[in-house]
Amino acid sequence: METRPSRRPRRNPGEVPDVVVERLPLYLRAISNLTKQGREVISSQDLGAELHTTPAQIRKDLSYFGRFGKQGRGYHAGRLLEELRHILQLDRTWNVTLVGVGRLGKAIISYPGFAPQGFRIVAAFDADSRQVGQLVGGLTVQPMSELERAVREKDVSIAIVAVPATQAQAVIQDLVKLGIRAILNYAPVTPRVPDSVRVKAIDPVLTLQSITYYLRPDGASLAGEEEQDERTPV
Amino acid sequence: METRPSRRPRRNPGEVPDVVVERLPLYLRAISNLTKQGREVISSQDLGAELHTTPAQIRKDLSYFGRFGKQGRGYHAGRLLEELRHILQLDRTWNVTLVGVGRLGKAIISYPGFAPQGFRIVAAFDADSRQVGQLVGGLTVQPMSELERAVREKDVSIAIVAVPATQAQAVIQDLVKLGIRAILNYAPVTPRVPDSVRVKAIDPVLTLQSITYYLRPDGASLAGEEEQDERTPV
Repeated sequence: METRPSRRPRRNPGEVPDVVVERLPLYLRAISNLTKQGREVISSQDLGAELHTTPAQIRKDLSYFGRFGKQGRGYHAGRLLEELRHILQLDRTWNVTLVGVGRLGKAIISYPGFAPQGFRIVAAFDADSRQVGQLVGGLTVQPMSELERAVREKDVSIAIVAVPATQAQAVIQDLVKLGIRAILNYAPVTPRVPDSVRVKAIDPVLTLQSITYYLRPDGASLAGEEEQDERTPV
Repeated sequence: METRPSRRPRRNPGEVPDVVVERLPLYLRAISNLTKQGREVISSQDLGAELHTTPAQIRKDLSYFGRFGKQGRGYHAGRLLEELRHILQLDRTWNVTLVGVGRLGKAIISYPGFAPQGFRIVAAFDADSRQVGQLVGGLTVQPMSELERAVREKDVSIAIVAVPATQAQAVIQDLVKLGIRAILNYAPVTPRVPDSVRVKAIDPVLTLQSITYYLRPDGASLAGEEEQDERTPV
């Protein structure tokens, strides 16, 4: 058990680390910004400056996907944009379903940032009969019993889960059974899913709970403190 | 330039990796859940099962902060909870200011998850005079000119930024000047800040844009594809 790799086993020797995949959308956004400023050729230095990281990091990340530019010549911005969109499969639209149309779910439906990036919320569901039938952001909230049909008929690939913590595991299990392999999870739980399914948490509270670690007066790390101070080790 | 470490230089040899700090709130939540189920002693196996990770990972992460339990005896749940809350500085409340009270900002103020975890939004600001004076979630929206006084008088340590992309860098610079060192950034930009300031992005679009990478029919990695297919390398 203990030698099992931590989160997700690496199966493919050519597999790209998750952390690299997670940075690609940042590169996409930065290149897009530079393009809007009229730049046609951009260097890893430009990207590094835009993202406050090193050119070496950017070159290394991009090198996972083959050679994008010539040494010292920079990247053709338009083509790099296109390649990254291809790699991330953003050169198409994705149909998304929302489960949970409480206050948070309503804010998600109304969020104007998804559609311009190709993420279309095409159906919304709630287990609460008081929510069912309501019109929210142009969608009629449907009962959970309609989920299966909607996923099939509307070619849904991605789900956003905004249900209470107690319901999240069951809802996510249902989604997985229907073939959903990508889930954005707003519920404050860590659901159990098969390795083939990706769940990403959006949880501002968890984020705040780690950022406070760094708010010590002197900015010092706490590491090793337990050995030195008077607190009783557990 | 190229040998500079990627994101944030490690200054302190005892410094805890960010990724470990980011996992601690998950441990906290899992221990809290187990405690509510009446568990008084929990093992790294229990935590691993709850979080779908390995016991080894959990023991390694906790070992950065000293010894929490005896080999094979498990952890005293209540004390581990208390220690983690101490490490993350969650054994106190934190005053938070919100900048940007548009649709997203209003949803953030109304979000019921912050207060029970000790994060109190105590002041809200907007540059738009039409928002100023509005009552949102019990707070009167104030003009930006009042930001400095509020940060000082209300002992604000953390800011949540929910302004449009074009305003984010300027707003974050103002916050940093006022001594804010922890920022939750909902604006779709990567702001430039001094090393002493932590900015964490909450950006569901970026998250969706990386999750689609994994939605290939066969789940295969794209790494190396560029060498083999017919697409012209840039």
